[in-house]
Order: sequence, then structure tokens, then C-alpha cells
Amino acid sequence: MSARNALYLQSGGMTAVINASACGVIETARRHPARIGRLLAARHGALGLLREQLFDTGVLGRGELIGLRQTPGGAFGSCRFDLDEPEANPAQYRRLFAVLEAHDIATLFLNGGNGSMQTALQIARAAESFSYPLQVVGIPKTVDNDIVETDCCPGYGSAIKYLASSVREASIDMASMSSRRGRVFVIEVMGRNAGWLAAGCGLAAEGPDEAPQLILLPEVAFDEAAFGARLRQCVERVGWCTVVVAEGVRGADGRPLAQVSSAGRYVQLGGAGAVVSRMIQERFGFKVHCAVTDYLQRSARHLASATDDAQAYAVGAAAVEAAVGGAHGVTMAVQRVSSSPYCWHIGEVALARVANLERRLPPAFVRSDGMHVSDEFVEWARPLVAGEAVPTFIDGLPRYWSPRLALMPARLPAYEPAPIAVTAKPAD
Amino acid sequence: MSARNALYLQSGGMTAVINASACGVIETARRHPARIGRLLAARHGALGLLREQLFDTGVLGRGELIGLRQTPGGAFGSCRFDLDEPEANPAQYRRLFAVLEAHDIATLFLNGGNGSMQTALQIARAAESFSYPLQVVGIPKTVDNDIVETDCCPGYGSAIKYLASSVREASIDMASMSSRRGRVFVIEVMGRNAGWLAAGCGLAAEGPDEAPQLILLPEVAFDEAAFGARLRQCVERVGWCTVVVAEGVRGADGRPLAQVSSAGRYVQLGGAGAVVSRMIQERFGFKVHCAVTDYLQRSARHLASATDDAQAYAVGAAAVEAAVGGAHGVTMAVQRVSSSPYCWHIGEVALARVANLERRLPPAFVRSDGMHVSDEFVEWARPLVAGEAVPTFIDGLPRYWSPRLALMPARLPAYEPAPIAVTAKPAD
Repeated sequence: MSARNALYLQSGGMTAVINASACGVIETARRHPARIGRLLAARHGALGLLREQLFDTGVLGRGELIGLRQTPGGAFGSCRFDLDEPEANPAQYRRLFAVLEAHDIATLFLNGGNGSMQTALQIARAAESFSYPLQVVGIPKTVDNDIVETDCCPGYGSAIKYLASSVREASIDMASMSSRRGRVFVIEVMGRNAGWLAAGCGLAAEGPDEAPQLILLPEVAFDEAAFGARLRQCVERVGWCTVVVAEGVRGADGRPLAQVSSAGRYVQLGGAGAVVSRMIQERFGFKVHCAVTDYLQRSARHLASATDDAQAYAVGAAAVEAAVGGAHGVTMAVQRVSSSPYCWHIGEVALARVANLERRLPPAFVRSDGMHVSDEFVEWARPLVAGEAVPTFIDGLPRYWSPRLALMPARLPAYEPAPIAVTAKPAD
Repeated sequence: MSARNALYLQSGGMTAVINASACGVIETARRHPARIGRLLAARHGALGLLREQLFDTGVLGRGELIGLRQTPGGAFGSCRFDLDEPEANPAQYRRLFAVLEAHDIATLFLNGGNGSMQTALQIARAAESFSYPLQVVGIPKTVDNDIVETDCCPGYGSAIKYLASSVREASIDMASMSSRRGRVFVIEVMGRNAGWLAAGCGLAAEGPDEAPQLILLPEVAFDEAAFGARLRQCVERVGWCTVVVAEGVRGADGRPLAQVSSAGRYVQLGGAGAVVSRMIQERFGFKVHCAVTDYLQRSARHLASATDDAQAYAVGAAAVEAAVGGAHGVTMAVQRVSSSPYCWHIGEVALARVANLERRLPPAFVRSDGMHVSDEFVEWARPLVAGEAVPTFIDGLPRYWSPRLALMPARLPAYEPAPIAVTAKPAD
């Protein structure tokens, strides 16, 4: 009797290294043929599972896995889709287990963030009530770094390596321009509720007058007067200032700056960076440039961190080893042994301790004035950007590769989950 | 009697490789001690010349020049400052030549774009009427690639290597997300009048359905209906679309989209990318993400083109060789011998043939529908991004170095040019 199969899902917003996790899963599964028969992957995560849109990763050769590992985005496709509660929509779960059964799937690997860990937990619990024998194992990933119970999240290190490098470069450019009226560079980064990405930009500064001089975090209420005073001091002393703005920065009333209507204090201009830029221009007359990194920050595989790439691979590999060892209802976590030298290993955490929780920047990682990071943060974050995982370049550009696999033949009638439930997280 | 001195000026907006030109000048000047005594550099270009704020590059050691070559921005400082016409402000020129004379300067190297070549020409002509013995030699640089009489401009190749890589990465990320309502990624790049940077993003696409699918150029009047039709076709076929928007894209009336007031068709949102994004959202209901690369595109030294770095160094070195050979009133130009294999050398062009002219994208480089580049452009541009000039990384981030030199003691009374004349080019 052959070993039963496993299924791998990518879920939520992408990172530069989530495919390294996919490679970790695929290559490790192949080392356990007695326990894992075929490793399938769903197209667009849980949506593909419900639709029975599945790929067989067995067709991927060794060279293709090298290409896959260095490619950003989700090779098998992701989605922002929340399962309904089992009580509310039992038909959805009957379909889900029917697909799993039709493909003899006994193990499910979910590669995602907070919301995806909730999905994993829902499936694990439903499997019990539906008496479907299933092991569910989570694999963490998110540039937001907001998953609890892990020291860091694969994807984050590469994102802040890119952001801190960009802040350093753009600020050197600005510093070289002459100006009598002061110059400000504003860079908007992702982070609706947690300021991890904005904080990571702080790695660029190696001295008090180096960029970025100010970081606006969602965790700290924006105080226009205090910010203005700091900004003016910096421009008077240095001649310019670089300001990192998390997209979710909010005022004392708790409302995001970028969502205040034109009736309020600021005019909505499409983003927190634009709002802060406009405020600086109007109040101080400084010349302001504003960059919005958007998707670039989570896909900049050309500047991926070798540490991040290694951890992304390791959580994928460890998830398979854990499953082979009988684990169920757990997710992988990066556990730090020491910061200097940086030592880490992969551990396990119960899904129930992780699902749907959000980890914000702890106060100890924020400078006392709330507008920069602490030395403690820098000590924590620096190892995460170490090393360059350089992709192959062809004709001067990074050469990426995503599998264009044929879907496996369906064994069940067509099914379309409707209506689509969308998570509350709009920043995909 | 010792050899007379030379002065090097950086001018206009910066690039990732202008310091490679500085290194080319410095290292080549040192090979001609019998012809060039000391090589000085002005702080903030022509402003530093008028203010007598000068550095002596002789203090820079070999290791420091290695650091300098791999650092973006202008190490000696740049400015956007136009000299007045000699007839309008002869005092300004008397001051200028007094500074040159006080420091025994017989050669002037101006490293800049169109406007800077005009400055070089003004100084060269004034030197004749003031009977000051001076050789003036230009060194081209600009990410805008809009200098005439050169096949390409140092700085451009690195900028489009970064932009095309970013377009490719962000589009792979977007393509991996599931969506029923269609997704669009808009990326705004520099280019007020010339679409060279936007066109360069076209290198990312290796097939008709690869990103970017649409490129909006300042040279082609924006036709909302035609654009909308193309966009819709693309989203229907591919599921998503990446749109590159040059900041200077304009409507049929010649007015930039980003400057149309709220009374007009579009609401001003701070930039062409935001205007186009809003239009797409409102008209089609697609989910739109918008990135604004701003300074990042001209300072991304971590992804510099080795070809561009080599050409930037070469124009600096050739300028010195030309001056030593007696050249005056000329600027350097990259001259293409063949595209495949890519062969080039550095030639000379009279400043009068270059100054203040602007080179736009020729029609042959634009696809017939006006919304992408032609194969001819790709053949021309591809060699410019070849090779990676990777900087040193320390602790996971690029390590840059800018000289913190002491200014040379002033020999003349203080002088401040006032009022500052500012060029018409606001995109610094």
C-alpha cells in the first residue's frame, strides 16, 4: 500500500522568499517517500483546495526547484480567503474534506500569516468533528512580522533589507543636493497595525544624524507638534531629514491619517506618506519628495537576505519533518538562541496559540520619544538582514521562474465557494 | 614651475554612478602630474565655485576611492543653479574667474546634464571675453538619458536596471494573488518631458503578456479611451496588468495629468501614478496598487549596471585625457560601435551642440499604439543594464562612503550668489 499524499497551500500576501519555504516542503517531502506519497499544491491556496484545482509538485525537476527558490511571489498562487465557521457553512467543509479524500490527502501544510493560521486551526478542528484523519501543520510567512510566538517571520528580513538599503541610498542622494530651504524625503512603507517594516528602516542609520532620522509607527499616536519640532531641529542641524511613514500611522483619535476625509485636518491624498508630505510642505515650506514602495518592498528578491531565505527554507523543511514525526495542529516558529553570534533553530507552537493574534512592536523596541527604534530593536533586527541571497541574472535582469503546471484532472463535480469572504486586511 | 590645477564640479540631479565619473577624473588626473597639479572639487557644483568652497581631492587614498566609486549620490555635493548671462551679471563672472585664478585653476570639468552643459558653455565663452585661460570639458550624467549627441547617458543604465527588475518582481507578486475583479499595478517613474526611464521598464517583459503590459510616455498624448480599452483587454486575458506611468505623461491638450486641478477631469492627487490609479479604480473597479519610486530609482546603487558603472568611469577618465590633449569647449559622449556584441567608446562633442537641448524618445523606439516600446528600443537598451556592479555589504546592508573633507582655506572675501536662479526643471 502506497503512502498517503500531502497538500501544500500558499496563503495571504506574498514575500520575496515564500517559494523558499515551498522548496523546503517539496525537497524534504521527497526524502520521506514511505510517509508522504505525492506532494500536491493548491492553486491560490484554500480557494484551489475548495475548487479542486491542484498541481502535482512531483513533476518539478531539481533545476526547476533552484529556479523556484529564487523567485518572489507565490509560485502556486495565493489568495485572501477566509473559510466560514463550520457551523455556519458545513457544506464548505464537506466539500473540503471530499477534495482531500478524493486525492488521498492525509497532511496539509498551510504557508501563511495570522489569518492563514486561523484557517489551519479551523480545518484541524473540523477534521476532528468530521472524523477525517488529517495532520495540519502551519508554516509562517509575512513581511509584516506580526505573527506571535515566533522570533521573526520569514519574508520580513528580506523586506527590511530592501527598505533599509533604499532609505540609505535615497538619503545619500538627497544629502548631496544643495538647498537653502531644507529638504525632506518621505518614504511610505507597509504596516496597517504593526510598525515592524517601518522600524526595520531604522537599520539604515548608524549615527544620530544618519537617515532615517524619524520613523512614524502605527503603535505611536502621531503628534503633529512633537513631530514638527523634531523635523525642524533635524533640518536646521543636518539640512535635510528622511522620514519613514508606516501606512497605518494614526492620530491621537486612533484614526489612520490616510483615511481622514477632506473635512478633517488633512486632505486625503491616497496614503499616509502623501498626507505627511503635504503637511510638511504646508507647515514648513521644505522641499519634499515622497516614495511609496508598495509591492516593491515585499517582492524585492534581488536584495533578499540570505538569513531570511535560509529560515524560509527551514520552516518548510521542518514542517515536513514535524508531520512525518506525527505533529498535528502546530505551526513552525523561528526560535532565537542568541543574537551575537546569531543562532536560531525551528521549533513548534500550537496553532491555537497563534491563530488570528497580531504581534505589535513592543515598547522596548521603540525609542523613548516614539519616533525611532531603540538600540534593543537594532540588536534584534540586524541578524535578520545578514547575507545576500542573490538570484541568477540574465541580460542584466534577475531571471525568475514560476511553474506553469497543468492542473490535475478533477475527480469531483465543479464547486465555487460563494460569496467570497474577504479578510479585514486590505493591504494585499 | 608646477603644473596648474583643475576643478571638478557635480551638477544637477544625482545618479547611482556619478561618483564613478568622479573616480575616473581623480585617478586619471593623478596619472598626469606634469599637466594637472592639484585636482580640486567644488562643494555643490557651481555654487561652491562662486562661494569658494573647494576640496582638495589629493587627500583621498586609494581605498577611499574604492568606497567612493560604489557610493550613490554626489560625493562633493550638487546643486540646481544656473549662472546668469554674462551681460546681465558680469559681477558673477568676475567672481568666478577670481576664484579660479586664486586657486590657479586652468581646467574645469563639469559633470552634469543638459543644463550643466549650458553652464559649461557659458563659462567657456565668458573665459574668452574675460581673457582667462581656461579649458572647459563636460562629463555627461543623468538618469533621464535626455542629453543629445551621446548614445546614452551614464546613470541611465543603472536606473532602468533597477526599474525593470522592480517591475518584474512586483508583477510576479501581483500575478500570484487571486482576484475575480482584476488587479492593476501602477508604478510611477521619473521623466517630465522624456520617457526614457518609463521605456526602460519595458525590458522586464519577455513576452506580450508579461509585465509591464502598458507604458504611458510623456511623448505620447494620453488617450483615456484607448488606454482603457487596452487595459481591459489585458485584465480580461491575463487577470491583471502592470502600467508604467512617466511622471510627465500629459493629455491631448498638452497639460500634465498630475497638474490638472480638481476643476478639471481628474483630481490632483500628487502625481501622475495616483491620477491614473484613481481613474482605473473609478472606471473599471479593478483593485489598484501604486508605487512611486522617486529618489529610489536614481540612487539604487545596490543594483547598479556594471556597464553603466564602466561608462560613468570612462567618461570621467576620457574628459581628463581630452583636457590633457588640449580639448576645450567639448563634452564626452558614449558612442556605440555595435549592439551585438555591445561595443562602445568615448568620443568628444562640442558643448554648443549639446547645451540646453533635450533628447526625447524617438518614434522608432515607441510601439505603434504608443503604449509600449518597440523591439528596436529593447535591442538598443538591453546592453545598458548588463552586469552587476555590486557594492560592499556590511551587516547585510550596502556600505557607502562619502568623503567628509575639510574645505580649503578661502583666499578671497566671502561671496554669496543672490538671488539663486533656479532651473525650470523641478524634478530634483
